[in-house]
Amino acid sequence: MNSKKPLILISNDDGYQAKGINCLVDMLRHLGDIIVCAPDSARSGFSCAFSATTPLRLNLRHEEEGLQIWSSNGTPVDCVKLALSQIVDRRPDIVIGGINHGDNASVNTHYSGTMGVTLEGCMKYIPSIAFSLCDNRDDADFEPLRPYVVSMTEKVLTKGLPKGICLNVNFPRTPKYNGVKVCRMSQGTWGQEVTRCHHPRGYDYFWMVGHYQNDEPDMQDTDRWALDNGYVAITPTQVDVTAYEFMNQKKDWEE
Amino acid sequence: MNSKKPLILISNDDGYQAKGINCLVDMLRHLGDIIVCAPDSARSGFSCAFSATTPLRLNLRHEEEGLQIWSSNGTPVDCVKLALSQIVDRRPDIVIGGINHGDNASVNTHYSGTMGVTLEGCMKYIPSIAFSLCDNRDDADFEPLRPYVVSMTEKVLTKGLPKGICLNVNFPRTPKYNGVKVCRMSQGTWGQEVTRCHHPRGYDYFWMVGHYQNDEPDMQDTDRWALDNGYVAITPTQVDVTAYEFMNQKKDWEE
Repeated sequence: MNSKKPLILISNDDGYQAKGINCLVDMLRHLGDIIVCAPDSARSGFSCAFSATTPLRLNLRHEEEGLQIWSSNGTPVDCVKLALSQIVDRRPDIVIGGINHGDNASVNTHYSGTMGVTLEGCMKYIPSIAFSLCDNRDDADFEPLRPYVVSMTEKVLTKGLPKGICLNVNFPRTPKYNGVKVCRMSQGTWGQEVTRCHHPRGYDYFWMVGHYQNDEPDMQDTDRWALDNGYVAITPTQVDVTAYEFMNQKKDWEE
Repeated sequence: MNSKKPLILISNDDGYQAKGINCLVDMLRHLGDIIVCAPDSARSGFSCAFSATTPLRLNLRHEEEGLQIWSSNGTPVDCVKLALSQIVDRRPDIVIGGINHGDNASVNTHYSGTMGVTLEGCMKYIPSIAFSLCDNRDDADFEPLRPYVVSMTEKVLTKGLPKGICLNVNFPRTPKYNGVKVCRMSQGTWGQEVTRCHHPRGYDYFWMVGHYQNDEPDMQDTDRWALDNGYVAITPTQVDVTAYEFMNQKKDWEE
């Protein structure tokens, strides 16, 4: 892999065998050398979690000219850290999370392992993108995304992104898009998140599920509105989570 | 617990038996009824992760007038979701994460399970605070924090917080503070994050470790500067991670 091509580091939270990540590799092969380092099985909802107390393993699963696929027992963020520290022979030109099987818009950003990958790249000051398709099915059709994924990746490889800013790109579940919208993250709330079940041995246990509610359905500048109306949604996302307006009301709080 | 006192929901990422969370309960008992729902063991670095595929359990560990302590096998965020859905008899007036054994300033915000608790409360539109002490030791001394923790909690119980904004409060490792500063999150990078080890059976494994580098050590408006100079750091933190400036440069990206 000691070439002068761009180096593309890819991970996800659905595992290295998921259809989405393998479609992504296929779409981007012509743009550079590719290293995949992804969890050995699904890690949905892992956010920016890393493994503070678990020993991690790395396995080379596949290698050919310009492509290596590694798996790890760690989280999506662990996979990025492991790849940067143990696998790459040069600094990646881009880090990409996805393509996720499922929606990562609105507050899902905070729970998403795909966004964990992307924020981790961004926190290392590497231009980073998350791609997600609003379709949870194992056999979701990623082909309609191809021209957008290629063109956005090329654009970021060429122009970069501002330090501390990454892109959260979500595709609606339709084979035909009305266009691309650059959006803000919409406000929304998860409710009815816990289902209680009864184990045959006599105790209760719980599954995390939930229903998403859009708390500003009429706002056309939001990612949720874009997706609900057939647009590809690009939500520029930043590492800096400071609430600056509140910060400037210092007097109430400083002692 | 069917009283009219304020209801305080507490969780953490060090586990329900940690010293920090039990000191927090002791500090806040006089302010209202308290429900603790926290992981059954340490979950450091769990960020906003939730358990999408693991069945969860809840155990009532302790109950007395005005206090219930529950544990779960889930993540910090699971604990908040479980408490809101299965435990509380009314909507909590405040959600508090901590007191964490260790620093959650700067980019640690993104990895922190303590901040996971607090963001989860904030995403449910409940006023929420994270308290962390820059001391990882099991027997860290939390007593110097008491007047600040009490006064900040009282202030938030009385005045609330703007929707979508929570407080990330970090205390330096010193028994004497120079004051309180309201700060922004500083830019910093984790490096040397992976240590390779060799298992007696012949394979390599890896531990996640790392060294934090402050990338703007001279900026006096940052949380890292405040902590390094003996101040209690309040970083107002928002759920909305949209990069608005980039968002307004739409033309480059919309098609």
